[in-house]
Amino acid sequence: MAKQVKAEILAVGTELLLGQIANTNAQWLSVRLADMGVNVFFHGVVGDNEERMRHQMEQANGRSDIVIVTGGLGPTDDDVTREVASEVLGLSIEEEHEALRDIEAYFEANNRQMTPNNRRQARMLKGSTILSNHVGMAPGFAVTNEGTTWIFLPGVPREMKAIMDDGGFELIRSHFSLEDTIQSRMLRFISIGESHLAHDLQDLLDQQTNPTIAPLAAKGEVALRITAKAQTKEAANKLIDHTEASVLDRVGMYCYGKDDDTLESTVFHMLKEQKETISAAESLTGGRFIDQVVSQQGASSVCNGGVVCYATAVKEQVLEVPKLIINEYGTVSETCAVNLAVNIANKLNSSIGISFTGVAGPDPVEGQPVGTVYIGIYKDGEQPFAKKFHFHGDREEIRQRSVKKGFELLYHYLK
Amino acid sequence: MAKQVKAEILAVGTELLLGQIANTNAQWLSVRLADMGVNVFFHGVVGDNEERMRHQMEQANGRSDIVIVTGGLGPTDDDVTREVASEVLGLSIEEEHEALRDIEAYFEANNRQMTPNNRRQARMLKGSTILSNHVGMAPGFAVTNEGTTWIFLPGVPREMKAIMDDGGFELIRSHFSLEDTIQSRMLRFISIGESHLAHDLQDLLDQQTNPTIAPLAAKGEVALRITAKAQTKEAANKLIDHTEASVLDRVGMYCYGKDDDTLESTVFHMLKEQKETISAAESLTGGRFIDQVVSQQGASSVCNGGVVCYATAVKEQVLEVPKLIINEYGTVSETCAVNLAVNIANKLNSSIGISFTGVAGPDPVEGQPVGTVYIGIYKDGEQPFAKKFHFHGDREEIRQRSVKKGFELLYHYLK
Repeated sequence: MAKQVKAEILAVGTELLLGQIANTNAQWLSVRLADMGVNVFFHGVVGDNEERMRHQMEQANGRSDIVIVTGGLGPTDDDVTREVASEVLGLSIEEEHEALRDIEAYFEANNRQMTPNNRRQARMLKGSTILSNHVGMAPGFAVTNEGTTWIFLPGVPREMKAIMDDGGFELIRSHFSLEDTIQSRMLRFISIGESHLAHDLQDLLDQQTNPTIAPLAAKGEVALRITAKAQTKEAANKLIDHTEASVLDRVGMYCYGKDDDTLESTVFHMLKEQKETISAAESLTGGRFIDQVVSQQGASSVCNGGVVCYATAVKEQVLEVPKLIINEYGTVSETCAVNLAVNIANKLNSSIGISFTGVAGPDPVEGQPVGTVYIGIYKDGEQPFAKKFHFHGDREEIRQRSVKKGFELLYHYLK
Repeated sequence: MAKQVKAEILAVGTELLLGQIANTNAQWLSVRLADMGVNVFFHGVVGDNEERMRHQMEQANGRSDIVIVTGGLGPTDDDVTREVASEVLGLSIEEEHEALRDIEAYFEANNRQMTPNNRRQARMLKGSTILSNHVGMAPGFAVTNEGTTWIFLPGVPREMKAIMDDGGFELIRSHFSLEDTIQSRMLRFISIGESHLAHDLQDLLDQQTNPTIAPLAAKGEVALRITAKAQTKEAANKLIDHTEASVLDRVGMYCYGKDDDTLESTVFHMLKEQKETISAAESLTGGRFIDQVVSQQGASSVCNGGVVCYATAVKEQVLEVPKLIINEYGTVSETCAVNLAVNIANKLNSSIGISFTGVAGPDPVEGQPVGTVYIGIYKDGEQPFAKKFHFHGDREEIRQRSVKKGFELLYHYLK
C-alpha cells in the first residue's frame, strides 16, 4: 500500500469571498484527485490579500504533500499569488523564456495585441516545471519545495482543467508513484427518481464498503457513482463490474449509459446506429433541442436542421400548420404538436420529426397555464403522437425540462 | 466608522472534499454577509475528522469575529462538529429542551418515527441561542466565546438558508451593531481584453482604496467590480458613481451594461427599444443564437424564430440560397452568409436577419480550416454584410464563440 498522499486546494479570489462565483474548481479537482487515490483534506479560499494568503500558504506548506493553488496569476497587479508564494517558499521569481514564447504565440494566433502586463504571466518560481495551457494564454507551473509539491493554476475553470488533464495529474502520479489506484464508474439513469433508486438498492447501499456506491441527482437525471480501490486498475474494475451487475439486476431498465455518456449523446448514437435523421420544430424551446444534437461530433449524419417557430406566423407559413387547426385547437395543443412533428420531418426530409410547443411563461398563452408543454414525435411511416406535460419552475427551467423530456421520449421510442 | 467585522465560513463535509457537491453554502452566505457590511476573509472546507476540524476551529477562533460552521450536525456518529467545537471553545454540550420539543414536533408533523439518534440534534453548546429551523428537523445554534460569535448550521442548503434568514443574520446585525454597508457594482465590457482594460486603468487600479476596483474576465468578456464601503447605502453608491465616471471616461466605449446585464439581454433590449424583430439562419451554431434570444422574457415582441440550416439542402431548399452560389463560393463563404441573412429576414418577415456558417470541427469543410466562421447581418433596407472570423478551441468552444461574436456584432451594429 502506497503512502497516503495528502492534498489541499487553495483558491485565490475576492470574487469567491464575495460569493460572486462558487468554488467549482475545488470540486472538480477533488473528484479527480480522489480517483487517483489522493486524499484531499482541506479546501481553502482566500482573497487577493498578501498577508492572509501568506498565512494560508505557510500552513499548507507544513501539512500537505500536494498544494494546488488556483487563481491570482492574472496580468493585473492585484494578482499576487506568485509573489506571496515566492516569499513563503523562499524561491525567486523568474521570467521563463519558454512560457513567454507560448504567450507571444497565443497573441499572434489570436491576432491580438500583447500588453506589457501579459509578460507577467510568464513569470514563475525558480525551478518550476511549466504546465502548458493549450486553451488559454497563461501556463500553470509546478515546483517541489521541502517535500511539498505546489501546483499553480489559472482560476478560469476551462484553462485550469485543460492544464491538469494535459500534464498536471500525470506530474502528480509520477512524483508520488501512486500505487493504490482508485477507479470510479458512473451509471446513468433516466425515468427514475433518486429515492426510488435508493429504495430499490437499499441493502446494497447499506452494505457498501469497497466498492462504495453514491447516488447523485442532477438535471432531471440520477446517477450512481461506484468507486473501488485496489492495487491494480484491473482489480478495481473487477470489483466495480461485480457491483454494477447487481445494481443493473435491480434497476437496469432505467440505465441509459455510463461515465461520460449523456442522455443526449446516447440518443444521438441510437439515431446514428439506426440510420435515422432528425429535425425539430421548436416553439418554446427556441432551438435548444437541435442545438444539443448539433453539439455532437458528426452531427451531419443525423441532423439536417430545424425550424424555430416561435411566432404563430412561422408555424403557419413555414411549417404549414393549417390556420384551421390553430384556430380550433390553438398552438399549444396535441394536434398542433403532431402537425409540427410531421411537417418538420417532411419539409427537411428527415426520417424523424420532433416538436415542442408550450407555455414557458411568465404569462399564460391561449388560456393554458405556464408550464404546459406538448412534445410531438413522428417517424416516417409510423403513427405520430404527442404527449402533454406540466413542468414547474421559471421560464428557463421549463424550457430546459422540455428539451430533456424530448430526449427522454426519443430514448424510449428508439429503444 | 464602525469596526471592521471579520468573518469566515467553515464547511464540514467529506462529500465536499470528494467533490460530490460544490460549496454553494459559502457562496450564498458570502453574498449576504457582504451586503451587511461584514468582511468574509476565509472559506474553509474540512471533512468529518476530529483532529483536522479542531485545527481549523482553533485557527478561526483567533482570527475572526464571526465563524459560521455549516454541516456535521447530523444524527449519526460521524457528525462530530458539536463535539469538536465543545473541546475547542471549552463549552460543555447540553440537551436543549426547547430544541428537543421542536424536533419531536417535527416528527409528529411529518408523522415519522423519531429515532434515539435524532435526540443528538437537540444537543448544543452551553449558553447557545437556538436558531430555529422551520423547513427541517435540526435547529442551528449560536454562541459567543472570547469575542468570537460562532454560528452552527445544518449543511442542507435549504435549511441553512432558512435558519439564517429567520434569525441568523439578525443575530449578527444586533451583536455587531453594524453601521457600515458595502455596495458593489459591476461594469460589463465587450471587445476589450482584461489586460488592455487594466492597462488603460492602471493608475486608477494603483490608487484604489475605497472604492476598490477588481477586473474579472469570463466567457469572452471582461467586467470591473467597483466596491465601496460607507455608513449609508447612498454614500457608498455616491463613491461608486464617482469611480464609475472616471472609469467610463477612459473605456466607456467598451461598456455595454452593469450588474445583472448580459450582452445577450442588452442586445435584446436594444432590439426591443428600436422596435426591430430578428431571425437567425444558423448552420454551425445549430440554434444556440436564437435560443438565447428566446430565453429572454417577452421574446415574442422581438423574435419570430429561425431556421437551423445545418445541412446544405436546408440552406438551398428552405432558405433558398442559389445552388450557383453554393457551387461557386461554398457554404462557408461571405456570399453564402450574406444570402442566409437576407433570406431568413425575408422568409420570417423580420426586420433583421443574422446568419452563422462555418467549420465547428473536428474536420475541415470545403477545404476551410476548423474555426473558420462567417457571420452575416442584414437589416431591412440597408446593405447586408458578413464578417470572417477564426475561432480557437474545440467544437463546443467554436460554436459558443460564434454565438457570442454574433451578439457582439449586433451590439455595435445597433448602437
